[in-house]
Amino acid sequence: MESIKAGILGFGTVGCGTYAVLRRNQEEIRRRAGRGIEITRIAVRSVERARAALDALPRTGAAGTPAAGTPAAGMPAAGTPTIDTDFEGLVADPSIDIVVETIGGTERARELVLAAIAHGKHVVTANKALLAIHGTEIFQAAHARGVMVAFEAAVAGGIPIIKALREGLSGNRIEWIAGIINGTTNFILSEMRDRGVDFATALADAQKLGYAEADPTFDIEGVDAAHKLTLMSAIAFGVPIQFDRAYVEGISRLDAIDLRYAEELGYRIKLLGITRRSADGIELRVHPTLIPSKRLIANVEGAMNAVAVQGDAVGTTLYYGKGAGAEPTASAMVADLVDVTRLHTADPEHRTPHLAFQPDQLSDTPILPIDAIKSAYYLRLRVADVTGVLASIATTLADLGISVDALLQKESREGEGETDLVVLTHITLEGNLRRAIAQIETLETVVSPVTLLRTENL
Amino acid sequence: MESIKAGILGFGTVGCGTYAVLRRNQEEIRRRAGRGIEITRIAVRSVERARAALDALPRTGAAGTPAAGTPAAGMPAAGTPTIDTDFEGLVADPSIDIVVETIGGTERARELVLAAIAHGKHVVTANKALLAIHGTEIFQAAHARGVMVAFEAAVAGGIPIIKALREGLSGNRIEWIAGIINGTTNFILSEMRDRGVDFATALADAQKLGYAEADPTFDIEGVDAAHKLTLMSAIAFGVPIQFDRAYVEGISRLDAIDLRYAEELGYRIKLLGITRRSADGIELRVHPTLIPSKRLIANVEGAMNAVAVQGDAVGTTLYYGKGAGAEPTASAMVADLVDVTRLHTADPEHRTPHLAFQPDQLSDTPILPIDAIKSAYYLRLRVADVTGVLASIATTLADLGISVDALLQKESREGEGETDLVVLTHITLEGNLRRAIAQIETLETVVSPVTLLRTENL
Ligand SMILES: NC(=O)c1ccc[n+]([C@@H]2O[C@H](COP(=O)([O-])OP(=O)(O)OC[C@H]3O[C@@H](n4cnc5c(N)ncnc54)[C@H](OP(=O)(O)O)[C@@H]3O)[C@@H](O)[C@H]2O)c1
Ligand SMILES: NC(=O)c1ccc[n+]([C@@H]2O[C@H](COP(=O)([O-])OP(=O)(O)OC[C@H]3O[C@@H](n4cnc5c(N)ncnc54)[C@H](OP(=O)(O)O)[C@@H]3O)[C@@H](O)[C@H]2O)c1
Repeated sequence: MESIKAGILGFGTVGCGTYAVLRRNQEEIRRRAGRGIEITRIAVRSVERARAALDALPRTGAAGTPAAGTPAAGMPAAGTPTIDTDFEGLVADPSIDIVVETIGGTERARELVLAAIAHGKHVVTANKALLAIHGTEIFQAAHARGVMVAFEAAVAGGIPIIKALREGLSGNRIEWIAGIINGTTNFILSEMRDRGVDFATALADAQKLGYAEADPTFDIEGVDAAHKLTLMSAIAFGVPIQFDRAYVEGISRLDAIDLRYAEELGYRIKLLGITRRSADGIELRVHPTLIPSKRLIANVEGAMNAVAVQGDAVGTTLYYGKGAGAEPTASAMVADLVDVTRLHTADPEHRTPHLAFQPDQLSDTPILPIDAIKSAYYLRLRVADVTGVLASIATTLADLGISVDALLQKESREGEGETDLVVLTHITLEGNLRRAIAQIETLETVVSPVTLLRTENL
Repeated sequence: MESIKAGILGFGTVGCGTYAVLRRNQEEIRRRAGRGIEITRIAVRSVERARAALDALPRTGAAGTPAAGTPAAGMPAAGTPTIDTDFEGLVADPSIDIVVETIGGTERARELVLAAIAHGKHVVTANKALLAIHGTEIFQAAHARGVMVAFEAAVAGGIPIIKALREGLSGNRIEWIAGIINGTTNFILSEMRDRGVDFATALADAQKLGYAEADPTFDIEGVDAAHKLTLMSAIAFGVPIQFDRAYVEGISRLDAIDLRYAEELGYRIKLLGITRRSADGIELRVHPTLIPSKRLIANVEGAMNAVAVQGDAVGTTLYYGKGAGAEPTASAMVADLVDVTRLHTADPEHRTPHLAFQPDQLSDTPILPIDAIKSAYYLRLRVADVTGVLASIATTLADLGISVDALLQKESREGEGETDLVVLTHITLEGNLRRAIAQIETLETVVSPVTLLRTENL
């Protein structure tokens, strides 16, 4: 069978990685897909830079025995792609079946993806920002035109979590998802814990090592994780993409002392994306979270990602791997290219819907505001070291129906007259808890604002 | 769209579980698949038993808010299936699109599955024994007839590992897979370690708790794990199913002392199924394995399963969840039913091949005999507590080119005159190591046969 033809928009980390993996593994991919997948065209802003990147790729296949009937490793790819700056030309090119979007961002990418769809192309993308913000419009256009928009690489890099949620767990009523879905922040938190450094130092290290970008805002403020979580939430619960409803709290204000206290209490702090079905609606929130140290997900270190999914039939499952980087992301991009190659002849009505549920069957279950979620909490209070302080705080909490699970009172240092008091609560309504904090902060013995973190017993 | 019709062969744990999950989640499944999946017929040996099992199922849906536009929970299923003893009638029934095989075993199941295929039915099964032994014949028949045989539930229960390997990682050259793929043995090993009991006691506990069958041979001797591993190996490397070539060693002869020594050296012992691509061929082996305690997979406890997969692009990924039980297995069965429902209108040439690679493109890379594998090893020697014993053993190992990574010498107990010596080797050829052991066992100072275990630094 003739190869399927694809074109790539942009040729940075993901674009070049996708090309490299496709070329290196072309024979295995052909043995799987039944036909080749060929990149015939690349559109970039700088042709020279793209050509240099392309020329820098190794010409040989991976080491190891060539499979039966495959040509010897070291053979050049079937053809060399055209590289030009004509983005509109690529998405309109009648010889191209699939458009691979790797430019990132939400403006130009939106235009080009919509144009590609209008021209009847299938789209493969890693762009979570684009889909979290313009996904509804894009998937609607694709559905109307009978084409696929595949986005495995947009969530948790190389981990096939979209496939697991959308297809692997399709028999379940999904209860919740909790994921470490941003490698930069997980790396920073691991550094803070391992080396006892503060956030700024750990961030600088991450930037030096290439785990954080020059402008790390999207990562450290939880926005990137919220983009990914919003997509998973829509897939899990059959609700529309509602990024604007997500509660988003990053790690930039996290104090190293809380990592230490958490550790003493038997917890690790991770930036989790959590989405959960409750009686009142759907929780959709990203924030630093205490997790019991013994849990598998608490032991996901460095830039690794992991997503835990709870379904009513399957129970808890966990998916772990690299969430970013040229090759892991390319692994997901190529898997999508193979999927599209397989399914492009299938009748559109029988394909898996983009967001798992039939688009005309979405649920209007609301996304809950943060005050309406239920969680257990970690509170750190700076208190005067005088008798009765514990009692007055305990009373305030009890009066509001908040029960205490554990307490950690640090000895005050010589002459300081102040000490840290850490409270772990049982599960309660966040609104309740915030009222309790407001009251506690009026106590004379409480000398600074209360630090609030959430805990999850996954 | 009209519902797709399926019939179930057998109504035990998996058959009944599949029916229960399908019924409970019918509305969510319809919202995903775009049409309903209906069990219209069940064939069993005892109609009464099946009817009793069916009547014992709760009539209501799961707790929680009903989705938009779905009928109220508590509604009975669309129709009640016919239950009879006519297995041949079911697989030939022209009104049925999909046959769900849940009788287990390899004789009758083979006949019925082949008959179903001959009648043009798609098949969904959890039967790993059947596919490890008759898979080639069954997949060939299905391919020729243009029908699908789906078997997600056959490996690692509810974990969508077949989908991950076959589709999610299709862009990779897979390097190795290592899995805890038998819950019974993992439960027994966890018990042995946690409670310091011996194998027989842990097995008896597992039987009492329903984690081991009355005849546990297939589980404890590693046969069940080898069935599953053989299927994953074929999918990963594009080789034929070769169960007869697998090296299979169970845990029944495992001594509790080795779990303790492993622990002292910083390792856990797990029954792993390992399949790896090497320069000479493919390793395919199931045996108790030492894994560094810090690794995620070393911390998979109780009856849980986990599979680690290494691909050239994605790096290491891990998939974790329940490997057995009515509901987790049903989760996979229903996902396959949804997949078949989606893909049954697709042209067969574009469907994912049963074993990931096109059946006419299989590789003839050989499966290596156990002597030709490479591994690091754990050796436990019972030696006379005299000077020079360590030196003579070290010399024998060095002479055969086996280098020692770590040593643990226990103090001999008062008056015993013998002691345990534990050696961890670096990676070496197993044939080499076995020659070394044979020589070591001739030493006068070595008083009993050497215990050999393999270690993996996953
Ligand atoms: N990197 C990862 O590990 C990773 C993982 C998962 C998902 N993603 C997603 O993948 C996408 C690409 O990320 P990346 O890391 O590959 O980025 P990158 O390395 O910065 O590459 C982006 C490429 O697109 C081009 N480009 C950027 N803006 C453009 C515009 N407005 N018009 C035309 N071309 C433009 C760039 O060209 P110039 O060289 O001219 O600037 C460059 O070739 C993003 O959506 C990102 O979120 C990345
Ligand atoms: N149980 C699990 O957690 C699990 C997980 C993964 C995969 N699996 C696989 O799923 C399959 C079914 O396992 P299961 O646990 O459901 O077994 P089970 O509870 O013993 O149920 C087997 C059912 O098939 C019937 N049956 C058995 N042999 C038959 C024969 N020769 N002819 C007609 N009917 C026959 C039994 O009928 P009677 O009641 O008359 O004996 C019973 O209804 C097996 O292949 C197993 O390996 C099981």
